[in-house]
Amino acid sequence: MITLWHCMNARSFRPLWALEEMGLRYELRLLPFPPRVEAPAFLERNPLGTIPLLEDGDARMTESAACCQYLADRYGPTPLAVRPEEPDFAAYLNGLHYGEATLTFPQTLVLRYARFEPAERQIPQVAEDYARWFFARLRALTARLDDGREWYCGRFTMADISVGYALMLAVQIGMQDRFNPTIAAYLDRLRARDGWRRADAAQNSAAASAADPFA
Amino acid sequence: MITLWHCMNARSFRPLWALEEMGLRYELRLLPFPPRVEAPAFLERNPLGTIPLLEDGDARMTESAACCQYLADRYGPTPLAVRPEEPDFAAYLNGLHYGEATLTFPQTLVLRYARFEPAERQIPQVAEDYARWFFARLRALTARLDDGREWYCGRFTMADISVGYALMLAVQIGMQDRFNPTIAAYLDRLRARDGWRRADAAQNSAAASAADPFA
Repeated sequence: MITLWHCMNARSFRPLWALEEMGLRYELRLLPFPPRVEAPAFLERNPLGTIPLLEDGDARMTESAACCQYLADRYGPTPLAVRPEEPDFAAYLNGLHYGEATLTFPQTLVLRYARFEPAERQIPQVAEDYARWFFARLRALTARLDDGREWYCGRFTMADISVGYALMLAVQIGMQDRFNPTIAAYLDRLRARDGWRRADAAQNSAAASAADPFA
Repeated sequence: MITLWHCMNARSFRPLWALEEMGLRYELRLLPFPPRVEAPAFLERNPLGTIPLLEDGDARMTESAACCQYLADRYGPTPLAVRPEEPDFAAYLNGLHYGEATLTFPQTLVLRYARFEPAERQIPQVAEDYARWFFARLRALTARLDDGREWYCGRFTMADISVGYALMLAVQIGMQDRFNPTIAAYLDRLRARDGWRRADAAQNSAAASAADPFA
């Protein structure tokens, strides 16, 4: 059985969404945020205290975009992965990494220095530097979509899940007013998917149940 | 023909190293740093102005760890990739992402706010926050290696190239004094590889030739 350790709307939403898109069975364990402070027992499972933690037999994964690729390759074949012999294979791998390393990390700087840090440690300069950094890097996504693509590759894949979560995070931060129409429409398409809706319902249901994640 | 656009010792060293480990033919184009300022003609090829840019036929890649996986899967089979049916497949994918998203990005904050920004925009607090962040996340690598592994997975793979570059960057920043003996010995093993030496020789040779990268 696959177990996913998750926090509401955090980057572990990527593997949650991937599990729902693939229709795989899994157990969802919802942790309060930040888990290393609010759920110290979690450190026994993941000493870094970070989410996601995806457990599958002996496998332990902590990188959200890697989890998506793992699920597709381990439990496929699935159209959610692009195979090495397909023309979009390079774009697929690039998109998986771009969504996290290039589009998500800068936003964590905005969150940290504009919101999470106590007032005396907040730094508007850094929040603004990395908001600008995020929108500069987002131009590559706009260019791909403006090139006539409905999805990051020719069809919906794990690359959309990786990139799509970065856009969901930007909405949480309140930056969606700065999305151009191409990005806004892409995000609407992503959130209209049954897989996205089931993943969102799953996390809301786990939150409503208030179950002990360690039980 | 594969073309790699690279800056000395930058994260594009990952695909350079991967190309040398695989013995593939490629053309190396060395750019001054930062290319978006020092080589504006590069923006026509990569509007983001970032390196790496890996060109292979119609493929264009900008994410360094993704390039490594691409080369292995597109030009393999090679022991540098772990296949989905191998026990280390989850660790392999996780390591590819961990090396960049988790271990390299925090160091770019140290570089930016302690070195690259003009004096009045430097912020020691951010540099220290993310130096600490880097070493906290590095504990996961130490734990893997202390578990009796010579490499990130059971053999040398692209995951070592992803993680290894993050350690090379830490040396450039001057943080190697804070490496524990496990990490220091692992970095020594990485830099002793023929593939690493050939990649380093290739970038030094390109720098010495002072060839026009756009010629």
